[in-house]
Amino acid sequence: MKAVVYQGPYDVQVTDVEDPRVEAPTDVIVRITTTAICGSDLHMYEGRTGAESGLVFGHENMGIVEEVGSGVTSIRKGDRVCMPFNVACGFCTNCLAGKTAFCLTVNPGFGGGAYGYVSMGPYRGGQAEYLRVPFADFNCLPLPAGTEHENDFAMLADIFPTGYHGAAMAQVSPGDTVAVYGAGPVGLMAAYSSLLRGASKVFVVDKVADRLRLAEEIGAVPVDFSAGDPVEAIKEGTGGHGTDKGIDAVGYQATVSAGEEQPAVVLNQLIHTVRATGRIGTVGLYLPSDPGAPSPEAAEGRLLIDIGTFFERGLTMGTGQADVKAYNRQLRDLIIEGRATPSFVVSKELPLTEAPDAYARFDKREEGYSKVVLRPRDLAGV
Amino acid sequence: MKAVVYQGPYDVQVTDVEDPRVEAPTDVIVRITTTAICGSDLHMYEGRTGAESGLVFGHENMGIVEEVGSGVTSIRKGDRVCMPFNVACGFCTNCLAGKTAFCLTVNPGFGGGAYGYVSMGPYRGGQAEYLRVPFADFNCLPLPAGTEHENDFAMLADIFPTGYHGAAMAQVSPGDTVAVYGAGPVGLMAAYSSLLRGASKVFVVDKVADRLRLAEEIGAVPVDFSAGDPVEAIKEGTGGHGTDKGIDAVGYQATVSAGEEQPAVVLNQLIHTVRATGRIGTVGLYLPSDPGAPSPEAAEGRLLIDIGTFFERGLTMGTGQADVKAYNRQLRDLIIEGRATPSFVVSKELPLTEAPDAYARFDKREEGYSKVVLRPRDLAGV
Amino acid sequence: MKAVVYQGPYDVQVTDVEDPRVEAPTDVIVRITTTAICGSDLHMYEGRTGAESGLVFGHENMGIVEEVGSGVTSIRKGDRVCMPFNVACGFCTNCLAGKTAFCLTVNPGFGGGAYGYVSMGPYRGGQAEYLRVPFADFNCLPLPAGTEHENDFAMLADIFPTGYHGAAMAQVSPGDTVAVYGAGPVGLMAAYSSLLRGASKVFVVDKVADRLRLAEEIGAVPVDFSAGDPVEAIKEGTGGHGTDKGIDAVGYQATVSAGEEQPAVVLNQLIHTVRATGRIGTVGLYLPSDPGAPSPEAAEGRLLIDIGTFFERGLTMGTGQADVKAYNRQLRDLIIEGRATPSFVVSKELPLTEAPDAYARFDKREEGYSKVVLRPRDLAGV
Amino acid sequence: MKAVVYQGPYDVQVTDVEDPRVEAPTDVIVRITTTAICGSDLHMYEGRTGAESGLVFGHENMGIVEEVGSGVTSIRKGDRVCMPFNVACGFCTNCLAGKTAFCLTVNPGFGGGAYGYVSMGPYRGGQAEYLRVPFADFNCLPLPAGTEHENDFAMLADIFPTGYHGAAMAQVSPGDTVAVYGAGPVGLMAAYSSLLRGASKVFVVDKVADRLRLAEEIGAVPVDFSAGDPVEAIKEGTGGHGTDKGIDAVGYQATVSAGEEQPAVVLNQLIHTVRATGRIGTVGLYLPSDPGAPSPEAAEGRLLIDIGTFFERGLTMGTGQADVKAYNRQLRDLIIEGRATPSFVVSKELPLTEAPDAYARFDKREEGYSKVVLRPRDLAGV
Repeated sequence: MKAVVYQGPYDVQVTDVEDPRVEAPTDVIVRITTTAICGSDLHMYEGRTGAESGLVFGHENMGIVEEVGSGVTSIRKGDRVCMPFNVACGFCTNCLAGKTAFCLTVNPGFGGGAYGYVSMGPYRGGQAEYLRVPFADFNCLPLPAGTEHENDFAMLADIFPTGYHGAAMAQVSPGDTVAVYGAGPVGLMAAYSSLLRGASKVFVVDKVADRLRLAEEIGAVPVDFSAGDPVEAIKEGTGGHGTDKGIDAVGYQATVSAGEEQPAVVLNQLIHTVRATGRIGTVGLYLPSDPGAPSPEAAEGRLLIDIGTFFERGLTMGTGQADVKAYNRQLRDLIIEGRATPSFVVSKELPLTEAPDAYARFDKREEGYSKVVLRPRDLAGV
Repeated sequence: MKAVVYQGPYDVQVTDVEDPRVEAPTDVIVRITTTAICGSDLHMYEGRTGAESGLVFGHENMGIVEEVGSGVTSIRKGDRVCMPFNVACGFCTNCLAGKTAFCLTVNPGFGGGAYGYVSMGPYRGGQAEYLRVPFADFNCLPLPAGTEHENDFAMLADIFPTGYHGAAMAQVSPGDTVAVYGAGPVGLMAAYSSLLRGASKVFVVDKVADRLRLAEEIGAVPVDFSAGDPVEAIKEGTGGHGTDKGIDAVGYQATVSAGEEQPAVVLNQLIHTVRATGRIGTVGLYLPSDPGAPSPEAAEGRLLIDIGTFFERGLTMGTGQADVKAYNRQLRDLIIEGRATPSFVVSKELPLTEAPDAYARFDKREEGYSKVVLRPRDLAGV
Repeated sequence: MKAVVYQGPYDVQVTDVEDPRVEAPTDVIVRITTTAICGSDLHMYEGRTGAESGLVFGHENMGIVEEVGSGVTSIRKGDRVCMPFNVACGFCTNCLAGKTAFCLTVNPGFGGGAYGYVSMGPYRGGQAEYLRVPFADFNCLPLPAGTEHENDFAMLADIFPTGYHGAAMAQVSPGDTVAVYGAGPVGLMAAYSSLLRGASKVFVVDKVADRLRLAEEIGAVPVDFSAGDPVEAIKEGTGGHGTDKGIDAVGYQATVSAGEEQPAVVLNQLIHTVRATGRIGTVGLYLPSDPGAPSPEAAEGRLLIDIGTFFERGLTMGTGQADVKAYNRQLRDLIIEGRATPSFVVSKELPLTEAPDAYARFDKREEGYSKVVLRPRDLAGV
Repeated sequence: MKAVVYQGPYDVQVTDVEDPRVEAPTDVIVRITTTAICGSDLHMYEGRTGAESGLVFGHENMGIVEEVGSGVTSIRKGDRVCMPFNVACGFCTNCLAGKTAFCLTVNPGFGGGAYGYVSMGPYRGGQAEYLRVPFADFNCLPLPAGTEHENDFAMLADIFPTGYHGAAMAQVSPGDTVAVYGAGPVGLMAAYSSLLRGASKVFVVDKVADRLRLAEEIGAVPVDFSAGDPVEAIKEGTGGHGTDKGIDAVGYQATVSAGEEQPAVVLNQLIHTVRATGRIGTVGLYLPSDPGAPSPEAAEGRLLIDIGTFFERGLTMGTGQADVKAYNRQLRDLIIEGRATPSFVVSKELPLTEAPDAYARFDKREEGYSKVVLRPRDLAGV
């Protein structure tokens, strides 16, 4: 079959790879209808990780079940399904606690599994014609048959639940004011989720005009941090109090207005943005090892954090990759009922074969390539 | 009346001060029966704060109501009451949310009020014969008449709820394993509270033998960090997993085994002690300003935190001073029914007049002075 | 001053009564700008309660502070405020737990206090020019100055928080399906609140066309129980499963399609409407004593409930009058930010003097009188 | 193999039945080491259900894994395991929500599955030498190797989690007062669990002296309802307030002091026992169909409930069979660490072959037969 294969830094190609097959009785094989490129794929694309050539990319996958293992109970050939980016077993201590991003079974010794991602276990990615899905009863989210809401449902694999996870960790509740740092796809989903949860006012901080415009379109207040201190702007917009809640959708590659990378700048801004007793949900990535970091401490994921202010204000912070399964059913139901349309972030739909070009343009932040979905074949023929 | 008055660094004296009086209709005056010296009083005692001479110390207070304002409804002359160290109004946004440590009314512009503490508002301390209590209906916890459980109830003003707050923020639940760093009075109360909440195994880390012995006596597992890496010891004691939950009862004056102060050492140890998906409750103090800090960043409360590991493990951390009122009724009821006896931490009972000597010995960490309660008069005569 | 005074069954008049005055230092006097008539006022109006002549009606009140007691801290003359229908102290065990509808102080021996209501304590109602508000710091919700959102804010005294309480007790969460029985003002507010909390689909059951039309206008699915079994209709609309959550906004005066009163019919329908593991929030009134009940058991509030099915399905039910203070700040903020406009239920605005006519017409369920707000003077002159 | 087989009313025999075998790749076969007789087995034993002859009894099972299906990942031959009485899939909507007692997969159209129980699906019971366990990764709780704590662990299959479920639904929290109706094995476990969760005072209501003595031994306050109104007794023991929480561990076969069956008596007593705002957890069984009921309504599970008082007090009630998997890991860990020893309820250990005699004596409530565990072979030889 065809798949998007990593060749080396700045080089992915669509090549033939061996078809996946049912390896365990609990596996299914899914024929991919839509698979998205994620900002985190760029970490590998740019050669900043230990990814080796030959890796098939793609952790935002949906499609039609093609083959079913003998130990699978609830999933049938022909079912339309979406898979969380986290591969999870469903029965370890963490999965039982709903923390599927930290499954202890699928990638022993590490913090959970994922498709097509370095260090996340032996699970080939779904930027391909077919995908093997382990523990299929647990990992497949059933969708209504057909092709309706295809792009909305594709967002259920990662970025919609990830944005929602930020809002959930911050415990965004009806009436809350919220500050979201970062208006990339995940930040927009965090703002969107905050509004779905009943926030009264959501600020979204970024410096890219297109992103801020999208934020405004969904009902958030855009804050351009290149035009002034976002902390001050948000304080002003909340009667001097700061927001009740905050979400970090940027992570360690945060930059200041001038463009310089300052890994802790967003976290520290958030600490000063939320009011005393506030809560912060951090879904932007921080890593215990970052060879390209601006300082030796940062290279080990050790950053200068305003912990004195954090404590004085009695803040709470939740962090970590999203446990997609904790949210994807509920979000699916909102899509089905027409109450959520996360596909507003999708900027382009392309055939799988155009992946190499899409990666290159996305990596250059070309307009229109902020969120690309790929289709191995035309949707009409699915 | 007599009161413990700060004169300057390392100098408190029991002197005559003006009697407190009802200043607002919602005030009461309490005749103090027991008042405790707290480790945080030493910050002022040692002259490391902006406390000015003339300040009356004492935020762990209980006694008998002596005089009642005309706007007080539920408290009557003769009632035995214990006051949370936090002064709070009961009707601001934060008090309504149960976050009385962050009352917006009693000390505007700062993070809450307290008796007898620098920067915590104009509330004289209770190491004295009498104490004015504002918003008395809200701030007085009624106790059974008499003198029974006097020392247990005295612990309700601060350290029992503060230790409990650590366990609550960490969401210690039945069956959990817990690591408590620090076996001072608050750390012991955190361990004790964890056990009350049903923890299956509680580790307590310290290097002072007496403290570790007390930890063991209440059913915790003592870990001497001067004898080896506590993270490794706790990993070993939990089958390699680390604990489900962690509590920081040390704060920024943390020291390493050799004695050197390293403000972030305990937080970073906790990050490596709790397992992925774990929760940390931090009640040890961190400050946004610490003139005596070992580095310019630390002087501004900015510490090098292992945020990469924190995120990778999906940890959650709650922080801040305890909202005593959120817990003191329930803990009182456990004392009344004989299910909790927090007075086990009280090391000495002294007349108020011996406060100067007690401060000096406590400051030198003399044995027997780890938790001193003072009595303005003999309890038998109360 | 002028006030709406109960004379006897079916007879209220606007007469002169003594002006209220500050009785305790913690009181304020509020000049009423808007006060609403509530369905529960009709219980008294119809003479079905022990209300005695002379009672001033009105528990949905807002206005401008006119006079302030010496023990009041946060409220000032001229402040625009809305009062929860529950009078509460703010410091008893129940108020501290957020259960202000069950304040133990303001109406000892009974289940909480209210303005202008039989058996709810000595608190005169606000269908009048002025109102005395006890424990003013706790009971006044501050509003932005001016007259904007007047009718929206008036809904904060009772029906918006009461509807929200139903949704909160049912734990309505993003993605949930919800069935609301009753499309009177409270039922509509329950449906509206469910949508604000992120429900994916909300069914509203009633038989009055106007009410069902309003339900549809806010995005709910109307179910006309006079046209067929609502349980079956909702099952059909949820793929045979039933809803995740249910809200009873009808209470003991429930009627079947033919018009006959069957006090338990709605509760039992809900038990069959929600799916196994579901949750029910009951804000419709049930009473331990109802002289007009159709059976001796019902007269004592003892009804035949499908408890076998309730248990078999593992249902949970929360009940009781709303703790308005638990919700009114957050809902106010949604109004201020334009994200909630509960005034859509207001059907008519009248001068206070027209109260007698309004009561008579409301009691006859005349169109346009489903939710009347009264104004002692023209809003422009406020 | 040998198994306890139902022959007809009041007749079980230990006979040879076919060995179970791996039927699906996700099955394991467990060699039973301990299996308990449950009070609910008596419903079938007495012929009051639709159970047909040939049914193998036993839903409280533990043992050693003997054979493992090809689709099982985490369980290995030789593992010591305990199985929740609920058979569950781990991936349906209800299992994902932690509501394994309402698994939608294992017994379609009904409310969940169980071993050896009429209407609970095709799962043979474990009062036998071997047991087939479906969805073994999900349904097997791993235990430490050996034979230590055998009886404690056996209680994890049903009654310890079931009692705990009552306390969890009532949200028993540190400091709470609790009333438990029923001091059979489940009631005792509910009281024990309440104390583990930090209750300050637990009342246990029954009339059997032996049971009340056991309740007292674990630290609860025994209340003999044959000696007077338990509601009054508990009110007296709580300063007139009633308890914060209540647990119904009796169910529809409740009797009054004189012995007469009154299905709703305990529920209604609880409604009057808990104070306003209280919470009730109901684990005692109520059924939608009870042919032997004292009234036609009761025969359909429709009982006269004091719903007026329930609402007036603002009570909340959770109900339903226990979701064992929600609790069994945590309770296991408390057993391992020596902080819980639920085996105190075990009154007798017998060889499997003596099951018929044990059933007969248990059914007659003979002393010493209140909780019998059966062993297919001597534990020493396991």
